[in-house]
Amino acid sequence: MPELRKCPITERWVIISTERARRPTNMKAERPAPADGVCPFCPGNEKLTPQEILAYRDNGGKNDPNWTVRVVPNKFPALRIEGELDREGLGLYDKMNGIGAHEVIIETPEHNLQFPQYNEAGIERVLRAYRDRMIDLKKDVRLKYTLVFKNEGEAAGATQAHSHSQLIALPIVPKTVIEELVGSKRYFEYKHRCIYCDIVRQELHDGTRLVLENPDFVVIAPYASRHPFELWIIPRKHVTSFEEATDDQFVFLAKILSQTFRRLEKALGKISYNFTLHTSPFGENHAAYYHWHFEITTRLTKVAGFERGSGFYINPTPPEQAAEYLRNIKL
Amino acid sequence: MPELRKCPITERWVIISTERARRPTNMKAERPAPADGVCPFCPGNEKLTPQEILAYRDNGGKNDPNWTVRVVPNKFPALRIEGELDREGLGLYDKMNGIGAHEVIIETPEHNLQFPQYNEAGIERVLRAYRDRMIDLKKDVRLKYTLVFKNEGEAAGATQAHSHSQLIALPIVPKTVIEELVGSKRYFEYKHRCIYCDIVRQELHDGTRLVLENPDFVVIAPYASRHPFELWIIPRKHVTSFEEATDDQFVFLAKILSQTFRRLEKALGKISYNFTLHTSPFGENHAAYYHWHFEITTRLTKVAGFERGSGFYINPTPPEQAAEYLRNIKL
Repeated sequence: MPELRKCPITERWVIISTERARRPTNMKAERPAPADGVCPFCPGNEKLTPQEILAYRDNGGKNDPNWTVRVVPNKFPALRIEGELDREGLGLYDKMNGIGAHEVIIETPEHNLQFPQYNEAGIERVLRAYRDRMIDLKKDVRLKYTLVFKNEGEAAGATQAHSHSQLIALPIVPKTVIEELVGSKRYFEYKHRCIYCDIVRQELHDGTRLVLENPDFVVIAPYASRHPFELWIIPRKHVTSFEEATDDQFVFLAKILSQTFRRLEKALGKISYNFTLHTSPFGENHAAYYHWHFEITTRLTKVAGFERGSGFYINPTPPEQAAEYLRNIKL
Repeated sequence: MPELRKCPITERWVIISTERARRPTNMKAERPAPADGVCPFCPGNEKLTPQEILAYRDNGGKNDPNWTVRVVPNKFPALRIEGELDREGLGLYDKMNGIGAHEVIIETPEHNLQFPQYNEAGIERVLRAYRDRMIDLKKDVRLKYTLVFKNEGEAAGATQAHSHSQLIALPIVPKTVIEELVGSKRYFEYKHRCIYCDIVRQELHDGTRLVLENPDFVVIAPYASRHPFELWIIPRKHVTSFEEATDDQFVFLAKILSQTFRRLEKALGKISYNFTLHTSPFGENHAAYYHWHFEITTRLTKVAGFERGSGFYINPTPPEQAAEYLRNIKL
């Protein structure tokens, strides 16, 4: 069983993953490569993954091949869904057993399609799968947060070429989310406005960091971008949780995501990036000041000792320059 | 002039580096390679670096070749030392101009020596250079913190093969340091003890995460290690700032660092890692509860979307396993 441990100084949690444990003598080996180059995410190979949790298909039964999106448990899960949540102290340290969910969202049956090549209906399906899984996981009272993320490219940590996202549901709210909640609450207490709504207003007015807009969403290169071509996709309307998004909003979200990924690819080629959903924790009320959004962080530069030691980032591309460049891309 | 910008939500600062600016069309190019493979850090090539700030040599003048350690400004500095510190608001955003120092500590004249191959006197010289530069930079009232770090290997962000450390002095205290100060202060207010002193006591008593000890220092694999083979080197005696360390302590620190890096290399081969000094900010009093130390974080696994989105880490090697393995290495 994996273990959740808390750093007593910074309150940062880590997952000490026993299922993925690697012996010191075997540190260089990443996950085992699929046998004979067979892709476990391609239709027809459903038996190579654990039993599916969710799939969209017009007809056919569970684990049949004719799906459009398929969600399965991660074969090498960082956390386990079975068992009671147990907390324990060890002198000055604290731990929990690693209860949680770790799922893979196989975004498309086509092995060679990536996000920029999906049609809008294909992107909408992926968004609905994220939402459907979150609504289901929310029922588990042991879980406090679901992080949806996508690692694209080897430098971003992807280990399977077939396009997929992942979801990790956790018994604690992660540090990064707490920082956003604390920061947006502090702003709300001072200004009585949502900071994300204010950012959307200022960026629409100013225009220099605005990449795209449509009736429901804006895409901006954030003012304090950590990474070159970092992008945030923010709903115009104040909504705290992604699960509250409607199918109508997904139409506009799919449109703007398609535009964003196509422009990024046209501008920079096939790059490695992480795509993460930032949303409100389960069962807590942050409705007044927290505002869900997506963040795309590229892997164009290396995060080095300075960043690791300081939490500071050095970004060689001003966001105004990145935004202008992406705005001017002709698709 | 580079710019310091603050994320209004998380209060994370970034350096938007104009000196290092790369056009979107040129994102893939890292720094220019040295002409004809000439190493700017080798003796005899002193003219290829900016004028030296500090050097240890038995005889000879400034910028002469016969040095043992040499400190020069970074040729592509993230921050600039010249100018007034200027703060400005832009709607809801805050910025400062990028005042600070960015220096390179060339650790040895020998192009092919790395930390595990230095003799102890060589390591002591590097430690003295860190301390001498910090004492000097402390006099600049605009500066609040000096981060000393080392990127070893390409995966850790190193761009020059010749062994070197870097130092960035900042007009603000970095986020990671604030988190450690807040956490250790909170513990002190509750327990009236330094948390690092308590960690040293518990780890010496428990022994499972202890890697090495000598009269002045301990090396542990921290309980909530983020990375496989993450190691902390902590002084046994409570001292808040690295600059207060004495030459006598450097003798023991050099001994334990040499042992640590040699064991890591014997265990894992030539790996990429970051080595960072964590010390108290300038001109603030955290003497009761903050305790300087070094952290070594390896680059054996990739930091992916989950870590970026959550601040959580998944570590496949329990620290108890890493510590046991390193303890049993025969040098």
